[in-house]
This record gives sequence, C-alpha cells and structure tokens, in this order.
Amino acid sequence: MAAVLRVDLPENAYDIAIAPGSLPEIGTALTPLGLGKKILLVSNRIVNKYYGDTVRESLTAAGFEVVTHLIPVGERYKTLNSIQKIYDSALEHRFERNSTFLALGGGVIGDMTGFAAATWLRGVKFVQVPTTLLAMVDASVGGKTGVNHPRGKNLIGAFYQPKLVYIDPDVLETLPPREFRAGMAEVIKYGVIWDANLFAQLEAAAHLDTVQTIDPALLETILVRSCQAKADVVRQDEREGGLRAILNYGHTLGHAVESLTGYKVINHGEGVAIGMVAAGQLGVKLDLWDTAAAQRQDALIAKTGLPTTIPDFLAIADLVNILQNDKKVQDGNVRFILPTAIGAVTITDQVPAATLKTVIKACQSAMP
Amino acid sequence: MAAVLRVDLPENAYDIAIAPGSLPEIGTALTPLGLGKKILLVSNRIVNKYYGDTVRESLTAAGFEVVTHLIPVGERYKTLNSIQKIYDSALEHRFERNSTFLALGGGVIGDMTGFAAATWLRGVKFVQVPTTLLAMVDASVGGKTGVNHPRGKNLIGAFYQPKLVYIDPDVLETLPPREFRAGMAEVIKYGVIWDANLFAQLEAAAHLDTVQTIDPALLETILVRSCQAKADVVRQDEREGGLRAILNYGHTLGHAVESLTGYKVINHGEGVAIGMVAAGQLGVKLDLWDTAAAQRQDALIAKTGLPTTIPDFLAIADLVNILQNDKKVQDGNVRFILPTAIGAVTITDQVPAATLKTVIKACQSAMP
Repeated sequence: MAAVLRVDLPENAYDIAIAPGSLPEIGTALTPLGLGKKILLVSNRIVNKYYGDTVRESLTAAGFEVVTHLIPVGERYKTLNSIQKIYDSALEHRFERNSTFLALGGGVIGDMTGFAAATWLRGVKFVQVPTTLLAMVDASVGGKTGVNHPRGKNLIGAFYQPKLVYIDPDVLETLPPREFRAGMAEVIKYGVIWDANLFAQLEAAAHLDTVQTIDPALLETILVRSCQAKADVVRQDEREGGLRAILNYGHTLGHAVESLTGYKVINHGEGVAIGMVAAGQLGVKLDLWDTAAAQRQDALIAKTGLPTTIPDFLAIADLVNILQNDKKVQDGNVRFILPTAIGAVTITDQVPAATLKTVIKACQSAMP
Repeated sequence: MAAVLRVDLPENAYDIAIAPGSLPEIGTALTPLGLGKKILLVSNRIVNKYYGDTVRESLTAAGFEVVTHLIPVGERYKTLNSIQKIYDSALEHRFERNSTFLALGGGVIGDMTGFAAATWLRGVKFVQVPTTLLAMVDASVGGKTGVNHPRGKNLIGAFYQPKLVYIDPDVLETLPPREFRAGMAEVIKYGVIWDANLFAQLEAAAHLDTVQTIDPALLETILVRSCQAKADVVRQDEREGGLRAILNYGHTLGHAVESLTGYKVINHGEGVAIGMVAAGQLGVKLDLWDTAAAQRQDALIAKTGLPTTIPDFLAIADLVNILQNDKKVQDGNVRFILPTAIGAVTITDQVPAATLKTVIKACQSAMP
C-alpha cells in the first residue's frame, strides 16, 4: 500500500509520499520535480550507515550528483555552527540556486538541513526523507526549520517548505524503541487535538510501544492520519498566526521540562507526553475538559510506554520561570493549548499562575 | 510633497512612504501597522549619532518600547557573528513574535536586520528606515536580506518582506558624497533596465553628483521612480525565478570587482557602475545594443562622478574565475543581463568566454 498527501499551501504546494519499502526508489520519485543535478545529502553517521548507500545509489542511478555532508549525532549539534559547515560544503562543491539539500534523518537533521536550504543563496530546493517516527509525523511537515540558541530551543529559524516529503515506514525498524515512543507522543497529540477517530484506533490497538509489535496497517494509518492532521492545520495557517498554535499542545510545559533536564533525561516526545498530561489537568481544573477524557488520554500515553509525570528533581519555580521565555508568550501572558474534547482544543492565555503551579505540583506526584 | 507606493506581493503587501522631513513622525507612521510594543532599533554608531534620538523619541512618544542595538560600521561586520549578537539582544530583552526589528541605516544594516528578523523566532516584524541613497532605492525594497560568507557576498540570507519602508530624503544631507554617488549608480541602472523616462530626466539634470547640488524635486522623483521600478519588478517575481534577475544588471562583473578589491577600494555602487559599462560593451559586441546608447549610458555614469573603468591592477583571469562562483550561475553558465535599449534589457547565458575577456580588457583601458 502507498499514500500520497498533497499539502496545498498558497505558494508552496508539495506532496508527502508514504510507502513501505520505497527508499530504493527515491531517485525516480525526485525526477519529476525539476530539481537541478546536484544534491547535498545531509545526514548523521548512524543514519548514513543504515540508509546512506541505498539513497545515494538510487539518486545516482536517476542521474543526480550526490555530495554527502554528515553532522555529528545529537541535539547539541543543532547550532548555527553546524549550519555554517553545511554552507561551507555547499560552497566547496559549488551548489547553485537550483541545487537541492536533502535531509536524511530525524528532526534535528531535518530542521538544520531545512534552515540551511532556506538561507543558502536565499533559498535552494529542499527534500525531506525522515527516518524517525517523530520526524515523519511532525518535523517533516509544515516547513518549520531552525537551530537552537545557546539559551533556548529553536529560537533561530525560518518557515521553509520542502519540495517533497518522502516517507518509507520500513526504516523505523532500526529506530531505538525510546525514539519510536517519542514519535508516538506526537501521534497521540493529533488524536487529542484534531482526530478523534485516530485516537479511537490507538485506544483499540493491542500494542503501541514498539515498531516490532505494532500492527503494520495501523502504523501506516498513523502516518497518513498524522501527516494529514498536520497538513490540514498548516494549510490553514502556514505562518502560525492562529490555528497552527494548536500543534503546540503539550509543548509549552514539555519544552520547559526538556530544557531543564538538558534535553537528555527527557527527550522531546517524552516532554510532550508529560506536557499533554499537565495540559489535560489544566483543562479539567478550568472546567474545559472532563476527568474521564483526561484519563483516557493519560491511559493511552501510559500504554505507549511514555512518562506521565514531571521528574521529581525539577523545581516548580524553575519551570514557571522558563515558561515566561517560551516563544508562545504574547505580550507577557503564557498561552496554553487546552483540550475541550477528544479531538478538539482551545487556545487561552487565561491560566491563573496559582492554578498552573498547583497542576505542575500534582503532575510531579503519582497520577491521580 | 510626499508619496506612498504600495508593493502588492501575494502574501506580503507593504508600503514605501517617501516624505522629506518625515523622520520625527515615524512613531505615528508605525501606529496603524498593528505591531507589538517592543522595537529593536538596529543601527550603527554614526547613523545613531545623527538620527537615533529623533527616531527613539518619536517611537517612545507613540507608545513603543525601544531597545537600541548597534553594529560596528562597515561591510566586514556583515557576518553571522553580528546576527548572533542581534539574537542575544532580542533574547536578553525578551522580544516576542509580534515584536519589531527596525533597521536604521544603510544596506548593511538593513540586510542584517532583515535577516535577523526573518530568522529570530522564525520571523518577527520588520521595518526599514534607510539612510543612504543606495538603501533607499535598492536594498530596502524587495525583501532580500542576508550576510556575507567569508568567501562570498550575500551567500547567506532569506527573502523577507518589511511591514513598511520609511524614507525621509532629508537624511541624505549627512551622507558622504561618495556614498551618494554609489546610490546614483543604482538609479541609473533603473533608467537603463526599466524606465527610459527616468533616464532622460537624469540626462537633462545639471548636477547629479552631490545631494547638495541636485534639484530637490528631481531627488524625490528619483526616489519614487526607482522604488517604483524595483517594486514593479519584485511584484512580478518575488523569489527571483526570472524577471527579477534584471535587477542584477551591472552586478555580475560589479560584484567581482568589489570582491577582488576587498570591498574597499571599489564600493558596491562603483562596482555596479563599472559593471554597467562592461555590460553595455558586451551588449554592443553581441549586437544587442548600439554604440550611441552605450555612450549615453557611460556619459551619465561619468557625469555622476562614478568610475567607468576596471582598476588596472586587477587580473582578468581572477575576474573570470570569480564570475564562475557568482550566485547567478545556472548549471555552469555565467548569466548576464545585457541592455537592448535605454529602458530594456535581456538575460543571456550565451556570452562567449573570449568576448568576455576582450570586453574586460577594453574596460581596463581608457573608455572608447
């Protein structure tokens, strides 16, 4: 089976192609896009070891000239310094405006390759080949690119759309289980904020916690419906003026937890999982959501093997302080995305500071 | 007198306001734009000394909170490192997504402020207040932002449109005469590539070489028609797919000359002036343009006090080599913008290497 979703943005329409076993065909898939001959394949050592040769052989067979640029593994290399090294490669190999930067990897590789593509020669072509579940369902759709500032995640970046997102679910077989679960956090998010049917399918599944035990048909459904949800939201709000903010459900507190644990103890998906639990509790406290729905959400998160509590060693004051620096702050008020039903959320900056502290504290103890 | 031009881009329409003596009114002009309260005023020491207080007082009186960030004077500070310092200021003063970066200065300040605005939090609001003629007629219209790579000018950047371009011609009184003439090179360019009527008005003028001797009414005409020409071209081709390339008339060789002289001996406008003379000669050699038109162009350049010959100490081989690395190279062929009439140009990559060398050599000697 295979699926193609069209992301119909006013100026930048592109396809998301989802097909198991399709990686060796990527060269053929790029041919109709009218790209220049040169492709800068940006990846890291691990992903390159698994899939670099397959991609390079397919691209070369289709007539492309491929230069490979490897970035060290890990979020701590998601810096302007790494971007400068991509620029240096592009200059050394005389990349031109119609050349292509292709991201082969997870969210970090995708975000950095996209930002480099957005800013080299004021924009070259960009193709995403996500190899993690998180990147497939989240990072590779929507055009957010960027790097971290020493004092905050993703503070530097641009909106830049790819020419194609090319997803082969089979590559998830080599993904560490913890990273698979991190991606599932975003999948659950789409269920809560947008797609009650997806949520119900996830609830009905026997296993969600590893790629080996999940039903392959469900995995494809997950990819299609998650990308569709994100594409629907992005199409309506490419530059995050309004609606798109709902994609940040669970991210406000999630980012804070990630950041305070140095982006290592808690990864992005785990932070989002914890953030969704907290947002759910805030929703209940503010009479937006009912307890039963919150419990369904939390049970699904737990079934996926994701954390549901804030690590005990984090200080509430530190969390609150870091929330004040969140990108989603509008003229001083912290903005939260809170659920109102399975499949629907609301945006509010009317969360009393005391309520926030109470909920954070409750989320540090065992779940209610 | 005052003029407002509307730049009608599909997603980013904005105004260019041109009015002598209007700088003290800038706060009032920004009020209807729906900007957030915070403004990061980016400038350099010299411009800030002349105009910083006027702008700050007007903005503060209109209710804005202004933070000033100064960048050292000169093109050599047009680097990612300077951008990082802007990010640091924005972070320190808790700038948010609806905050504004305001460029008060010439092209270097405008390009850097725009790039920082394009990439901080994936895009904050941006306002241009150009204080050089070059920035008024060229850099502040069209959304090109960026910085230099150690090995090439403007290789790093983004397309990002301002919310407003605010031009007070009176500030040109403090501009060094050489910089005024540099701006006039771009004005002459618009005459040659787009606006034969502007060209004729420039030909008819008694003086063009200093802001003190130029007729004030002509100066305003120059600003309006130049911005209009650029806005017309940009509106038809925001991302430089085709037509917009004509704005690079004179720039292909001009950049090479600038670059080889370390961006000091020859400034940008002087490089463009030399490049237009060379492009004119190429046009004549290739039977696209007639000698009389080329002579009219060259005479206008000379009347403005701009150089018309390539410095003798530059090696032809070096110039040709640097042209190969120009951003405007398409799959290996150097692309030239060549005139076909006063007010019209064509784009070609069919310039034989031998012709190019002959013309470069001729342009090093006295003018024909």
